[in-house]
Parts: sequence; structure tokens; C-alpha cells
Amino acid sequence: MQAKTPEQSKTTMTDLVLPSETNPLNNLFGGELLARMDRAASIAARRHSRRIVVTASVNHVAFNRAVPLGSVVTVEAKVSRGFNTSMEVFIDVWMEDRESGARTKANEAIYTFVAVDETGRPVKVPEVKPETELEIERFEAALRRKQLSLLLAGKIKPNEATELKALFD
Amino acid sequence: MQAKTPEQSKTTMTDLVLPSETNPLNNLFGGELLARMDRAASIAARRHSRRIVVTASVNHVAFNRAVPLGSVVTVEAKVSRGFNTSMEVFIDVWMEDRESGARTKANEAIYTFVAVDETGRPVKVPEVKPETELEIERFEAALRRKQLSLLLAGKIKPNEATELKALFD
Amino acid sequence: MQAKTPEQSKTTMTDLVLPSETNPLNNLFGGELLARMDRAASIAARRHSRRIVVTASVNHVAFNRAVPLGSVVTVEAKVSRGFNTSMEVFIDVWMEDRESGARTKANEAIYTFVAVDETGRPVKVPEVKPETELEIERFEAALRRKQLSLLLAGKIKPNEATELKALFD
Amino acid sequence: MQAKTPEQSKTTMTDLVLPSETNPLNNLFGGELLARMDRAASIAARRHSRRIVVTASVNHVAFNRAVPLGSVVTVEAKVSRGFNTSMEVFIDVWMEDRESGARTKANEAIYTFVAVDETGRPVKVPEVKPETELEIERFEAALRRKQLSLLLAGKIKPNEATELKALFD
Amino acid sequence: MQAKTPEQSKTTMTDLVLPSETNPLNNLFGGELLARMDRAASIAARRHSRRIVVTASVNHVAFNRAVPLGSVVTVEAKVSRGFNTSMEVFIDVWMEDRESGARTKANEAIYTFVAVDETGRPVKVPEVKPETELEIERFEAALRRKQLSLLLAGKIKPNEATELKALFD
Amino acid sequence: MQAKTPEQSKTTMTDLVLPSETNPLNNLFGGELLARMDRAASIAARRHSRRIVVTASVNHVAFNRAVPLGSVVTVEAKVSRGFNTSMEVFIDVWMEDRESGARTKANEAIYTFVAVDETGRPVKVPEVKPETELEIERFEAALRRKQLSLLLAGKIKPNEATELKALFD
Repeated sequence: MQAKTPEQSKTTMTDLVLPSETNPLNNLFGGELLARMDRAASIAARRHSRRIVVTASVNHVAFNRAVPLGSVVTVEAKVSRGFNTSMEVFIDVWMEDRESGARTKANEAIYTFVAVDETGRPVKVPEVKPETELEIERFEAALRRKQLSLLLAGKIKPNEATELKALFD
Repeated sequence: MQAKTPEQSKTTMTDLVLPSETNPLNNLFGGELLARMDRAASIAARRHSRRIVVTASVNHVAFNRAVPLGSVVTVEAKVSRGFNTSMEVFIDVWMEDRESGARTKANEAIYTFVAVDETGRPVKVPEVKPETELEIERFEAALRRKQLSLLLAGKIKPNEATELKALFD
Repeated sequence: MQAKTPEQSKTTMTDLVLPSETNPLNNLFGGELLARMDRAASIAARRHSRRIVVTASVNHVAFNRAVPLGSVVTVEAKVSRGFNTSMEVFIDVWMEDRESGARTKANEAIYTFVAVDETGRPVKVPEVKPETELEIERFEAALRRKQLSLLLAGKIKPNEATELKALFD
Repeated sequence: MQAKTPEQSKTTMTDLVLPSETNPLNNLFGGELLARMDRAASIAARRHSRRIVVTASVNHVAFNRAVPLGSVVTVEAKVSRGFNTSMEVFIDVWMEDRESGARTKANEAIYTFVAVDETGRPVKVPEVKPETELEIERFEAALRRKQLSLLLAGKIKPNEATELKALFD
Repeated sequence: MQAKTPEQSKTTMTDLVLPSETNPLNNLFGGELLARMDRAASIAARRHSRRIVVTASVNHVAFNRAVPLGSVVTVEAKVSRGFNTSMEVFIDVWMEDRESGARTKANEAIYTFVAVDETGRPVKVPEVKPETELEIERFEAALRRKQLSLLLAGKIKPNEATELKALFD
Repeated sequence: MQAKTPEQSKTTMTDLVLPSETNPLNNLFGGELLARMDRAASIAARRHSRRIVVTASVNHVAFNRAVPLGSVVTVEAKVSRGFNTSMEVFIDVWMEDRESGARTKANEAIYTFVAVDETGRPVKVPEVKPETELEIERFEAALRRKQLSLLLAGKIKPNEATELKALFD
């Protein structure tokens, strides 16, 4: 199974913010954005694995900027690292101002997907071969996030979380 | 401003899983569930604050169980703690089997909302007065989560995170 | 087949009124509310019978109060009586004011469902054992409504509608 | 204000039954049909009154026939009678079989709408001048329904319900 | 296989323009109207052929008039000509002013559908027997459109396009 | 007003085909694809002009390939030429096979948009400066399409359509 670059799974989903998706301040609902990111990220995971994929978890997501009605929102997802049967997907969200054309980072988020066969059983996924500096940085951080998550779930012991431990030394 | 119990903001949203919300394995999309939880949690935050509320962040969410097409899903949200202008909302998700009537925990999640006035400026919210053992436990953990989040964002120093520090001593 | 209380089938569906559901006066469409009530009531009927259920009829429904955009609407459904293969479901609808927190009765409605097997054939349902005063009152009125409906459909004769007849004597 | 014929308000809404509107037996949800009928009937009421209209009530509706996924459903609505500021709308629903082309009556229903001005205050509507035998029959029955509804609401006394009384003499 | 009149396939779809379908100027999105026309036209094609039908092409469509939020829009589709396994459907779109009741032509469009069996293979369709002057005119123009389309696709030679050629002589 | 390249308005909209968008053969409705293309193309036109844009027309569109349920569909739109206040947008549609990862051209389409100010009045748009061979070819063909469309609408005379005329000489 050949490794793939993040670029090979890159998924771009550009769309408008419609009135049915906004709160009383006329900004996009947080939940609506979470759903769009899930759809874009699942396509990236599917492109990487060529399998059916299911959402396993969502990392902490902060909503720092309101996205107003009528905005153009671009959700860009790339698989940042593969772990046996799971994939971490990094998602960047931009909104753009119609008049100035300026593009602002609205959000970023990290989702994890598992590849499964037609019966729902996990199957192996290709490794990720990062290319750009940012992709390499995210690839490495993915291992620390994985260890932290296993540690919190009690599935590994603190001294096995080598990457994490190094941070505190 | 009088403190309120979590029971006073309790919001129950029971609904079916419809075909337009499911993936190729006929299970509810993760993103769809994230959007439902956001809607229920925002109503709880609004009931607690009697203000317009906007999603500020979503904690780590794990999707441990698939929710099949046609399931009845119950999303239950309660404000677990108030912090000046923000509220932590704890969300429990159950699905139930039609034939046996058995109710299974499908998920839990933690969202944070900020209360704002009509111009979008943050406003103070009431405190939370937990009653049951579980509510007290979640109320206390909320402070640790708040400190962790401030620490990660670089807004407080490690020795100011008193609740967190106690855990590692 | 053991009798169940209305509380055992109680279904609460709390949700916002979104822009795509409102008329030119910015109030919830009557038809949209009818659809929400149908969904909540069908879940209550399903919880009572643990069967697939299909809508058989809707009683007269009056829309006495407009429900404005952005309102929080709570639809609460309970099976009020079982009749061999059908169930009467009583639905109460409340809306709440964000600022005062006041909860106002917006509507009530009565739907009837039939329980069916996978081929669509009607199957028996448990009886209802009402507990509160209101539940008992609705349980009794259900029989009169059933007789009225059979009478109007020409399926029973006036003197067989014993409950109804008593009202006019 | 000139009287109008039911034909002048006739509204035809033909559409498919889509997967997102069906229950586990792959038939159209009752609630979905109630919402479609409300939309068609409100257009008929608007055509009759040339005003904003709001749903006031829905008469008893029976769902006698299942409407399967993929069916073509035709909802036809006509104002059957005007009463000062309200209008009774009669709705006929047909479904058709693709292969034989046969058209079957699936349902009928009666909705009442009130005409209002931009501030929501009721305004007068034109009278209805029925033409066909069926239209005349429905026009006359509308008065009996109106009296029954006022009687049940305690707004008129039994001996004032002249049309109704005549039925029982 | 007996010929049918355009009247026999006539499909009327009247509905409101809802907020979720409008652009920043509060007018119906062009794409939304294209989708409604496709649905109405596919029902007309299905009524003519009594088969499953799939969209084969859409002719040039001009959007000459904006259709504002809250308008009543009527889409009327009739099969204008049959060609072996395909059907040309002519669609007229009207919008109406609530206050004056005036009906304005908003658009017209021409879609082509192919009739298929359950496996997706094209099957023969009945011929069209136009009745009114307008139907006859559209029936004849359909042949020229068909020849133009075959000519442009390189499937016939200029001198085989007899109907088209006559226009330029 | 500075000219822009097609690359500067390039808009990519990747998304899944959901069950609520498919016909009885489980393929994407033609009308649904027309609506998606309109949304992507309107974003491209808006990026080019930095104005509100409204759909003016859709060129002939052929649906050559069925797009099955669950497919990943990519709609890519670029402004191909600007004409005073209008823009021609060229749209390419691909679908991809999950297992092989192969990308197939499913469709192409040409939409025209007009840029308007807040009151709906047409405003000037920047010119297009094509770069690649394909962009240049589409830029040139755009003028012929424009002349053909003006000629058909009777707004110019045959001998004014210099580009078109050259084709037949």
C-alpha cells in the first residue's frame, strides 16, 4: 500500500452561507459549520483510503470569528497522517469579503476518520508522506495528539507517550 | 443575577434519523449529530442566560457508536457551569432500539457558548447551582477544562491553573 | 402485553423556528408545525407499541397563537389511549419568550397512529394506564372521540355510541 | 368587493415523493402531506383574498391510503366559502401510478385561513360564488362546519346553529 | 403505442418562493428555478411515457425577470414532441402579484428527457399529437431544435437537416 | 478596473451526492446538478466582479453521464470572459470512483451572470485575461456565443456578427 501526499487527498468545498443556516445575529450556526467540515473531511479521508469512512472523533474546535449571511466560505481538508486504520484530517476554513476580495481564516479543526469495509470492519489505510513545511509540522503534531488521546482514554501508559513526554522535559 | 440549576436549562430534543442524514453504511453522519447537538446546546444556553448566544467552542467529541437510519435519537443538554459571559453546556446523546425499547448512550459532548446583546457584545450570565451528584461532578470538571483551555491558549500561566495543577501533584 | 403509562411514551422535541419555516409575517407556517407534531407523535406511538407506526388521522387543530421566527418551540407527545391496533396521541405545544423565560401554550392536537408489522399489516398494541388527573381525563375523552369518529364514518350506529349518547341525555 | 368562484382560487401543486419525506415502510410521512396541503391551501386563500393569509385551523384529516416513495402526488386546493375575514379551503389529494397512469384519490382535507394586513390584523375577504354541483355542496357544508366549530367553542348557542339543527330534526 | 396530446402530460407545480431559496437581493436563485423546472418537466415526461425518465439536456434558458421572495410561482410543463426514446418538454413559468392578482410570464425553458427501463436502457415513447395552435408551433420547432442539436453534435450532415436548411433558403 | 485571470475567479465545490438528491435509478437529479452549478458559477462571477451577481442565462447543457448516489462530485467554475456588465462562466463537472480513484468528466456547462449594485442596477465588470490554451480557446468562443445570442434575440444584424460570419465563410 503506497503512501500518499496530503495534496492527493486535498478537498475544497466552497459555498455560500444561506439564510436557513444562520442564527438571530445573521451569522452561520456553529453546528452548521461543524457539519460542512465533517463532509469535506470525510471526502478527503475517502480519497486517501479509497474506502468507506466514518467519523471517529473531532478535536477541540474554537469559533473565533463570526461568518455572516451571504459570505463565501471555503472549507479545505487534507489527510495529515494515517495510523493503521484511522486518519487524521486537518481542516482550514476561510471566509472572503465580497467587496475587498480579502480572505480571512475563520477556523481550523481536526477530525479523525476510520476506514471500513462494506460490513463496517476497520481496514488498513495508506501512510501519509507530507511535503510542505506546514504538512510536516501537522504530521508530527498528529502523533502527539494520538498519544494524548490514547493516554486520556487509558489505552497507553504515560511513559509510552514518548512524543508527549518530550514536550514536558 | 440569580443562580440557576442545570435542570432549569435542560433541553430535550428527540427526533428520528432521516435518510437525508445518513452515510453509505446507513448510519447518521457525524457532522449531522454535531449540528443537532449545537442546536440543543444553544437552546440550553439561551434558557440559562435569556440572551442571544453564539457557539464559542466544542470540546473533543468521540463517536463511539453508529446510529442507524430510522433510530430515535435523544439529545439532552444542560448548562454545567457559567463563567462571567460564557457557559459550558454538557450534552448526552441516547439512541433507542425500537423493538426492545432499550436506551443506549451513543455519545457525550461539551460545547461552550457566549451570551451577547443585540449588537454582538458579550454580557454577563447567571451562575450555575448544581444539584445532583453528576451535576456537581461536571460543574467541578468544568473549571479544570476552562483552565486547560486558557493555558493552551497562553492566556494564563501554569501556576495559575490551580485546579489542573492539583491533579498532577 | 403489559399496559403502559402515558409517561412511558412521553416524547419531547424542543427546537428553534428557522427562517426557512416562516411565512411573510415571520411566523412559523401552520403546515410546518403539523409536520413537527406528526414526527413527535409518531415517536411516542412507536415507544408505546415498539412497532413501526403510520399516521391514521389528525383531529381538528386550531392555531390560536402565532409562533415567531427565532422562538424555541417544545412539542410534547404522549399516547393517551390504545384501541386494539391504534393509538391516540395527545400533543401539547409550548413556545417560550427568550427574555422573560415565560412559557406559553401555543397549541394542542390529537393524532391517531396504527401499529403495523414489516409488511404493513396492523398489529395489537398495549393498553394505556393513565396516572395523572389530566391523563385520566384525556383517556376517557379518547373513547368518546373514537365513537364519534366511527359514527361519522358510518361504522357504528348512534345507539352503540354509548359514551357520546350520555353527553346529550 | 366582488365575489369569486372557487375556480379562480384553484391551486394545483404536483410533485414527487422524495426519499427524505418517507417513513420506514417507504411511504410519505403524514406530517409531510399535512405541510404540503397547508402550502397549497394558503396559496388558494391568498389568490381569493389578495392578502397575507395565516392558517387558523385544520379539520379532521384521515389518511386512508399510503403514498409510496417515487409517487407523483397532486394537491388541489380551492376556497370553498368565505366568512367575513376567514376562508374555508377544500383540498383534494391524488396519487398516480406510473405504469397504468391511473389516478387514485389519496386524501381530502379542509383548512381554514384568516386574511390579515401587514400588521397581522384580520381584514374582510370576498364571498365565494360556487359553480359546479360539488362546489355548491361544499359551500353549503362549510356553513354547517362553521356553526359546529362555533358551537364547540361555545361562541354560539345550539338554537342559533340553524343549519346544524335542521340535520337532526 | 397510441399518440398522446400535450394536455395529457400537462403538469402544474405551484409553490411559494421561500427564504432559503433566495439570493442577497431577495430574489429566487436561478439554480433553484432550474431544479423546480426539472422536477415538473420530469413528471410531464413520465406521464407521457409511463416510464422512468432521466434528464438528457436543457436548452438555452434566459432569466429575464427577477422572482421576489414570497412570490407564488407556477411552473407548467407539457411534452411538446416525442422522438423514438426521447421527449422534448416545454416549460412556462409564471409569477403572480399578490395584490393585483396579475400573472406575469417569468421564464420559459425546454428540457429533453429519455425514457428508460428499470436497468436504465432507453425504451420507445408514444408520439405527440398537438392540438392548439401554440402546441402545433412548438411541435414543429422541436424538429428543428432536434436537427440543430444533432448537427452541432456532428451526428447528421448539414444537408440532412432539411427543416433547418429551409429556414436559410 | 484591472483585468483578472480565470484562475483568480476559480471556484471549486466538492460534495457528496445525498439520498435526497437522487431519482428512482439512484442517480443525481439533473435539476440538482443545475442548481449546484449555478451556486458555484455565481461565486466565481462574484469573485471576478466583487459585486452582487444574478443569473442571466444558461447555455445548452447535456447530461451525458449518470452520477450515482454516494459519488463525490466536483464542480469547478471560472469566469471565461467579461462583457461590459455581464460575465460568461465556464463550468466543468467531474465525478470520481471511490475504489479506483479515477476521475471522469461528467458534464460541462456555460452560465452567464450580470453584476448589479445594491438596487439591482447593472454595473461594469473587469475584463478577463486568459492564460492557458484552454482558457484562451474558451475566451474566444465566448464572443461567438455572445454574438449568436444577440443575433437570435434580434439585437444585432447578421453582418454585425463578424466572428460568427467568419465561421461560415
